Amino acid sequence: MRVVQKYGGSSVADAEAIKRVAKRVVATKQQGHDVVVVISAMGDTTDELMDLALRVSPQPPPRELDMLLTAGERMSAALLAMAIADQGMHARSLTGSQAGIITTGTHGNARIIDITPGRITKALDEDHIVIVAGFQGVAQDTKDVTTLGRGASDTTAVALAASLGADYCEIYTDVDGIYTADPRIVPSAQRIPEISYEEMLEMAACGAKILHLRCVEYARRERVPVHVRSSFSHLPGTWVRDRVPVDPSDPQEGGMVEQAIISGVAHETKEAKITIVGVPDQIGEAARIFEAVAATDINIDMIVQNVSAVQTSRTDISFTLPKTDGATAIAVLNALQESIGFTDLLYDDQIGKVSVVGVGMRSHPGVTAKFFSALAAANVNIGMISTSEIRISVVVGQDDVARAVAAAHTAFGLDATEQAVVYAGTGR
Amino acid sequence: MRVVQKYGGSSVADAEAIKRVAKRVVATKQQGHDVVVVISAMGDTTDELMDLALRVSPQPPPRELDMLLTAGERMSAALLAMAIADQGMHARSLTGSQAGIITTGTHGNARIIDITPGRITKALDEDHIVIVAGFQGVAQDTKDVTTLGRGASDTTAVALAASLGADYCEIYTDVDGIYTADPRIVPSAQRIPEISYEEMLEMAACGAKILHLRCVEYARRERVPVHVRSSFSHLPGTWVRDRVPVDPSDPQEGGMVEQAIISGVAHETKEAKITIVGVPDQIGEAARIFEAVAATDINIDMIVQNVSAVQTSRTDISFTLPKTDGATAIAVLNALQESIGFTDLLYDDQIGKVSVVGVGMRSHPGVTAKFFSALAAANVNIGMISTSEIRISVVVGQDDVARAVAAAHTAFGLDATEQAVVYAGTGR
Repeated sequence: MRVVQKYGGSSVADAEAIKRVAKRVVATKQQGHDVVVVISAMGDTTDELMDLALRVSPQPPPRELDMLLTAGERMSAALLAMAIADQGMHARSLTGSQAGIITTGTHGNARIIDITPGRITKALDEDHIVIVAGFQGVAQDTKDVTTLGRGASDTTAVALAASLGADYCEIYTDVDGIYTADPRIVPSAQRIPEISYEEMLEMAACGAKILHLRCVEYARRERVPVHVRSSFSHLPGTWVRDRVPVDPSDPQEGGMVEQAIISGVAHETKEAKITIVGVPDQIGEAARIFEAVAATDINIDMIVQNVSAVQTSRTDISFTLPKTDGATAIAVLNALQESIGFTDLLYDDQIGKVSVVGVGMRSHPGVTAKFFSALAAANVNIGMISTSEIRISVVVGQDDVARAVAAAHTAFGLDATEQAVVYAGTGR
Repeated sequence: MRVVQKYGGSSVADAEAIKRVAKRVVATKQQGHDVVVVISAMGDTTDELMDLALRVSPQPPPRELDMLLTAGERMSAALLAMAIADQGMHARSLTGSQAGIITTGTHGNARIIDITPGRITKALDEDHIVIVAGFQGVAQDTKDVTTLGRGASDTTAVALAASLGADYCEIYTDVDGIYTADPRIVPSAQRIPEISYEEMLEMAACGAKILHLRCVEYARRERVPVHVRSSFSHLPGTWVRDRVPVDPSDPQEGGMVEQAIISGVAHETKEAKITIVGVPDQIGEAARIFEAVAATDINIDMIVQNVSAVQTSRTDISFTLPKTDGATAIAVLNALQESIGFTDLLYDDQIGKVSVVGVGMRSHPGVTAKFFSALAAANVNIGMISTSEIRISVVVGQDDVARAVAAAHTAFGLDATEQAVVYAGTGR
């Protein structure tokens, strides 16, 4: 088997932690696997380097910032290679550039456009464990060093797994998998043993922080099975992969065939809502508004437009966006008030988004009704609604978020005491 | 003009120091020069990284150690580029590999074998200040990252100056030049305004620590003028270059035409002396001894063989070597005692070496006599003697070193109060 393992910064926080990771890597190699390891910078290294940069320059040039920050993964990669060598195995560390991770030239947020893993496969052929510095690559045009954006070592790992034809990719982190809800809000939340790419994508987009959105997109596109698990235990974590159809004739799966309708409940509280009141109900007005906002690179999430009031020919448009972009969006829209002729602008950052996600809702009607009545029973008022084929999201008041998450979690039978609701085909 | 500047670790110890260096670099650029900067790692970074490596593995593989340590210069290079950009000038940092510094594959102690500075000249053509990470390169065969050995950023700077056809190379450090003797031993020691490559080479080989031996060799071979000066002042330092012949008709140099016979007095106390007593005086015995020692990679310095005592046909051979290699050499020689048939082996690590260096001794007879009588007057006993065309070295007891240095310094008129003894052609 060929395995790619990724260890995050908390797994390599100091020399002792690096030695622990080395043991785990060596154990995998001793099982006879080819092992490629993608590594993040140690603990707070990236933040410390960023602080140092800001002490030298308030606005460091992105090219130079990439040059600086990539030193972090380079150091942890070399140290892990040393720790593995100290346990008697051959190891070779490679920078993103040496590993053939070719990216766009957008410093600080580059995208992988190709992987030429010649040096990796050569080292594997020579029976080496290969350690690749995560989060970094080399720009195709300029040959300058790039970074893929914070947390993107996961993406490096999945992309390498795809390029190397690995059997699976293990993402080691400081939690033991993906949960049905945030355990800090729902103490009865359970680890999800297996989840499909599509569900994981919706969960990640709706606030589940364990896996980076771009990493899940990559895994889905390339069909790379991903195992999210804890580097502090040997327990199984969460498998993200194509869901295996349940075989009802398998006695092992007897009594476990009930597929959960909902895989998990995600939430986030980092968005704000803007409502544009009294927009003339004419073709093209909405386009003008969102073009203006889009021009500022603001990432709009949900959009709702009310039915126009016939007597006034005016409508209200609401949308959500990151709170950090609120001021910019308000300024852009205020500048447009006269030309568009809307009557008012409302801003609300005391909101939260609660989402239920599950492929089961494709085949189970009534999920929306069940979700909304659970919210009603918990006395939660719904502000906005948005849905996909496998997700229902609602915007609620910020103070209602925890209550809404818990109510949905219970309503869909996800609480840990209900033993029947586990996935079929788990336990591997 | 095209200038290469090198700043050592103490010049970039923290964010404030980096900003100070940036100001100096920008000022040079504003004078209209092309500027390439070679930078060391910040302060104690290299030592800290080495400590970290040893906490992970007692014997880190050299390839991985190079991967780790090179992060230090990468960080300081990026930070300096940021600080320069913050002062409104374009700057681009390059790793040794990006700068085209091609080396042998000897990790930890690689040698530069070629420089392909295409990315540097391109950046200079685009009016950028170029910052190159010192001390590092890329192995020609494996494309792995290499280091040139401790203190070798000076060599990087001189090699780049030669390759780029720079007019001169400035080495910024925490002292203001090369002194006629170590000022801690001889308080009246003076800064040497100008010194030839050959003299500097002898000084460096005999214990003057400011410039790396390999850097001086490179500068001499490529005829690169080197200016060693302090990054904490704007005073002139020491120029290492081909000595300009004095023009006696130049009135500016009237009264200063007396060339010093001796440029400086160097010393070191890191060597030990081994004496092999009663070696059979036959052809090939000395060769066998030194072949055996050389096979262990020990760097032998001075060798003295006494005239053989006719009645015994036996001779004594003494040599000096680094104290750190003493035990190895003794073990090797003990193993040879029977086959060679020498009678005894003596080891003395309480010695020191004192050298007087100066091209003036070529044309001035009597330098040896003057040196030895100064030592005799200071009651210093001479153990071994070795000479080159422009150097006389003696081995003395360790406790006599300071007294011997001071006596020679005074005897050759180098003390600061003697105004007449300064170099002709200085003051630039």
